[in-house]
Parts: sequence; structure tokens; C-alpha cells
Amino acid sequence: MKSYVRLFFALVLLILGGDAIGTLSLAQTDPLPSWNDGPAKQAITQFVQMTTTRGSPKFVPEADRIATFDQDGTLWVEQPMYTQVVYCLDRVPVVVKAKPELANVEPFKTVLSGNHEAIAKLSKDDLLKILAATLTGMSVEQFQAEVTKWLHHARDPRWKRPYTELTYLPMIELLKYLRMNGYKTYIVTGGGQDFVRVYAEEVYGIPPEQVVGTASGTSYSYDNNGRPFLTKDPKLLLNDNNAGKPEGIHLMIGRRPYAAFGNSTGDRQMLEYTKAGDGDRLAMLVLHDDAKREYAYGPALGLPDSKVGTFAQALYDEADKQGWIVNHMKSDWKRIFAFEN
Amino acid sequence: MKSYVRLFFALVLLILGGDAIGTLSLAQTDPLPSWNDGPAKQAITQFVQMTTTRGSPKFVPEADRIATFDQDGTLWVEQPMYTQVVYCLDRVPVVVKAKPELANVEPFKTVLSGNHEAIAKLSKDDLLKILAATLTGMSVEQFQAEVTKWLHHARDPRWKRPYTELTYLPMIELLKYLRMNGYKTYIVTGGGQDFVRVYAEEVYGIPPEQVVGTASGTSYSYDNNGRPFLTKDPKLLLNDNNAGKPEGIHLMIGRRPYAAFGNSTGDRQMLEYTKAGDGDRLAMLVLHDDAKREYAYGPALGLPDSKVGTFAQALYDEADKQGWIVNHMKSDWKRIFAFEN
Repeated sequence: MKSYVRLFFALVLLILGGDAIGTLSLAQTDPLPSWNDGPAKQAITQFVQMTTTRGSPKFVPEADRIATFDQDGTLWVEQPMYTQVVYCLDRVPVVVKAKPELANVEPFKTVLSGNHEAIAKLSKDDLLKILAATLTGMSVEQFQAEVTKWLHHARDPRWKRPYTELTYLPMIELLKYLRMNGYKTYIVTGGGQDFVRVYAEEVYGIPPEQVVGTASGTSYSYDNNGRPFLTKDPKLLLNDNNAGKPEGIHLMIGRRPYAAFGNSTGDRQMLEYTKAGDGDRLAMLVLHDDAKREYAYGPALGLPDSKVGTFAQALYDEADKQGWIVNHMKSDWKRIFAFEN
Repeated sequence: MKSYVRLFFALVLLILGGDAIGTLSLAQTDPLPSWNDGPAKQAITQFVQMTTTRGSPKFVPEADRIATFDQDGTLWVEQPMYTQVVYCLDRVPVVVKAKPELANVEPFKTVLSGNHEAIAKLSKDDLLKILAATLTGMSVEQFQAEVTKWLHHARDPRWKRPYTELTYLPMIELLKYLRMNGYKTYIVTGGGQDFVRVYAEEVYGIPPEQVVGTASGTSYSYDNNGRPFLTKDPKLLLNDNNAGKPEGIHLMIGRRPYAAFGNSTGDRQMLEYTKAGDGDRLAMLVLHDDAKREYAYGPALGLPDSKVGTFAQALYDEADKQGWIVNHMKSDWKRIFAFEN
């Protein structure tokens, strides 16, 4: 049989000739073309080589290859406001239409006023009220339909494009590159699990079951025809931020990632937890230092402070001390968006 | 290029000849040899054919092929007591050794007495105290190590075998058959998620991230060397029973299964939820009616009543009305365990 197999492959080469050689050279083209050849790209390719080459002392069996990605600021733009918050604010008029008594109640009144300054000043508690009113109380299917519709027509004010186009091309390449090498890619986001699941498969190639996020409970009941359905409850089950990220990873994945990618203080524990495992583990932070092509905020390295996606100097120092890779958007990324020329 | 491909396959057949034909007939051998040719087996193979044949009106794309399985009583023996409860009772002496003050406190005192009758009469609240004391308070890794060790030496009193050998061979075949046909198989168990994850990959071929179960929270902290770890908390996050099953499926998987398998009242909502989806969906209940080869309990069809794995007559009637398949262990399964001759 073995000689059959050899003969078989010899014939394949003979028959396909140039095509087979073309395929081979294609396999060797750069899988990360939007990354500049710098320390970040080098760390990634080295890590993948070390953990996927049979016989390497750091080889990781395919079943254990888990990579986790924060979303906001790591896979797509989070400035000037998390996309999901934009969604929630946009939904307020619909919610008030259904419950007119809310029109004169704060924080809904402020949102309806359209006064951007006042909206930006809403407290965390006010935001939570808006989130609860717009993300819960409907069936799972209704919510999915509402988000799908919104994503279709909503446009980012700076680029005038659908939010789902504001994903970082280098990270999309990285997701594919890891999957090509047997890694199972997960999103581990502080954003809403149900929100991100609506588009993650189409946009990132990540199926719903590989999206871990802040999650509310649901309750099971029956409609008038006896058909069961799930309603989204305002009861928080998992706050998938900070320590909630490793806790969420344990709950939903049940094993420690080999690679983790984030961009802010909320990702610190996920990266610590990842690096604390045996063998070769990769931890990387995206630093937004490119005001021209995207945004620049930090306040690490003296960048302007930001409430959205804070990357404190202390986090930068920890990354340095712990051997986490800091990806400097400005110098490490050749191209940021797929729509750029 | 197209003619190349045809030529290529023609040559493959020419070269491999008899071997290729051997492989083809191998692919047609029965994937479910431990099932008798009856309505249950027929329903399964028909369902798989309908949902995986391109062009079939009920075709389901591979990404959507989700199948969920209850564990206790569906994939392995649950009588006379859930295996995880046996584990918890076995752990009580260790817990008391670490905290001697518990020796004279109920329910620990009763468990230590070894009085089987008294232990069997413990209330649900007492059991919850034992579960909390033996399943929480340690790190995730410690717990995994303890369960692994226990599974290695513990023996079932009837068959004198490791509990992991008391899995149903027909169901193991079914798991493989579904996976072979592009289905992603999940466990959705009322048992502890962390407990089942310890052996699910080895025993069922189901990785940790595909085990949904009753789950407590964890908390993230650091040891004396600054190394982070997760501690299992006594705080219940998900009670994965009854309505908790579809709720757990939404939380952990995020899409509705196409096939669901259970054996008791605790699986009712999972099966209802599965069948309520569009297209062809399969719901199946395992009925334990074979006292000789396994156990007989119900109380459907006049079988003896049981607190463990109750299959009430009302559930049987619902199954009948809703078109769920009832798998009668006695007549549908040719062989129950792999260790049988």
C-alpha cells in the first residue's frame, strides 16, 4: 500500500504539474501581509511555529490550541464610543415609543434630547439603565433581528461606513493564520455576548459558541401557541471584564488559552492567566498610537487619556516586565482597514 | 483544470483499484452496530440523512449541526445514585480531616457513619451542603486532580468497574456517527460542568468547551508567588436542569440544537426547545426498561418509580404527542456496555 501511495503522489505531481507547484509556493506566501516586519509580527510567527511544529519542545496538541481575543479596540474600533453603546442609544426612541411614560424619566430624557455633551456625561448607573432597557426584555430571536437590522443601516460618523467594516485587517489576518494552524479562536469581550454573536461568524469567522462576553440570563417560557422561547433577562450572569475574563474563559471554554490578545486594562487578567500556563504562551496588547489612521489614546507613553479602552502606563510596565508583546498600531500595522487603498 | 481533476480521480481509481473499492464498502458498514434495527435506529439514520444530504429540503449547513446530550442515564448509568454524588460522599472524610469540627455536624456526621439507609434519606438541603463542601473552595486544578484520582480507583458496586466504563456503547456509537456527519456534539448535563469536563474528552470524545453543566462561579486571585489562579466558589451560576437546559444552551452555545437526547423529566425543556426550531429536528428519550442488563425505572409504562432519573408517564405522553422518539433500552439496544460479550 505504501508504494501505491508514493506512486499516487508522483502521478498527482505529474498530472497537475505547474498547478501543484503553484499551490506549494502559494502556501509559503506571507499569511500576515498587513503587518510590518517588526517585533510583534515576529513574536506571533515564532510562537505559532514553536507550538505547532511536531518535535518542538513547546509543541501543543491541536485540541489544546485556544486563542482568545478581546473585541472592542482589539478587533475593531472602539472610539469615540463602544459600538454596542451607540446601538443602545439608537434604540432608546423605540423603547420610549413602546413605553411613552419613559420620555420624561432620566436617563431616557437626556438621550432623547440628542444633546451629545449631556449624553457623554451620563453616569455609569444611567448607562446601565439604558443597557437594561435596550438589551433585555425581548426574546432572543427578536434581539438578533433588531441588531441585524441596525448593523445594516447604522454608519460610523468618521468613516461613514457600517461598523462591521471598522475591523482591523491585521487582526482578521491573524485570526485566519491561527485557525490555519489549528488554533480555535475565541472572542472574550466585555461587550454583550448576544450582541457580538450576531455578526461574529460573518465578520470574524467565529461561530456563536466561540463568543464569550458579558451575559445576562434568559428565562424559558411558552407563547400562546405553547411554543417555547427564551426571554433576555436584566439579571447579569457574567461581567466579562477584568477578573471576569479568566472566570468567563473557565466557564465557557474550560481550558487556559495559549494566546491572548487585548488592548486595555480590562484585558490584564486574561493576559496574566494565559501567560501563567506551562510552555510557550503568547500575550499581546494593541496600543492605539495612530491618530491619523485610527485613534491615539492610552495614557501609556503619554498618549491622551480615555475612558474607553484605557491602556494605563502601569499596564504598559507590566507588559514590559512580563514579556507581553505590545503591538504599536502606527509602526506594526502596514494597513489598518480593508477599505484603505 | 476541470478535465485534469476528472483524469486525476480516474487515475486514483486505476492505481488503488481494489483498495478504493474496499474503502467504499467500509464506509457503508453499519455505523450503529449495537442498535437493533427498530424505530429508534431508523429515526436517527433518517434524520442524519435528511439533514446532511445536499439538495434535501431539510439540509442543515455544517456550522449549524449541533447535537446535545444529557449525561446521567443518557450516556452512562445513573442508578442507584448519580456518580458525582458518590464522588461527593467519598470526599467527605477528606473534607472532615481538613476541618475536624465538621465531624459532629450534620449532614457530615451521617455520611461518616456509613449508614446507607440514613445517607439515602438525606434531604436535598443536606445534599447541597455536601456538594458545596466537596465541589468548591479549591482551585480549578486541584479539583481536576482530585476527580482524576478518584475516577481511577473508584469502582461501581454492581459491575466492579470504573464508572467511566459504565457508558452506553450504542450512545458512544451515536456520538461518533453524528460527528462523522458534521454534527458538533455537546453534553448538556444537570451534573457539574467541571466534574464532567475531567473525563468527557477521553470517554466521549467531547472537549471541555463542549460540556455544558451546572456551574458555580470562580474567583480570580494570586498565590504567594504572584501567580494567578481560579478558586471554585459555592455561588451557583447555572442550574442546568429543566428550564436551565435551554437557558444553558443559549448561554454556552448560542444556537438551537438540531438533535437532543435525554432520559428524564429534567430533559423535557431541552427537547421541547430543540423541536420548536424550523426544519427537521430530532428529540429522543432513553427509557430504562431492562432490569437484567441495566436497570428498569420510570415510572412511565408502569416501571418502578425513582428519584434518580424520573421518566414520568406525563413525559412519555408528551413524547408520544410531540413525535419524540422513545428508545427502549431492552428492545432497541443489542448491546449496552463495551465490556459485555
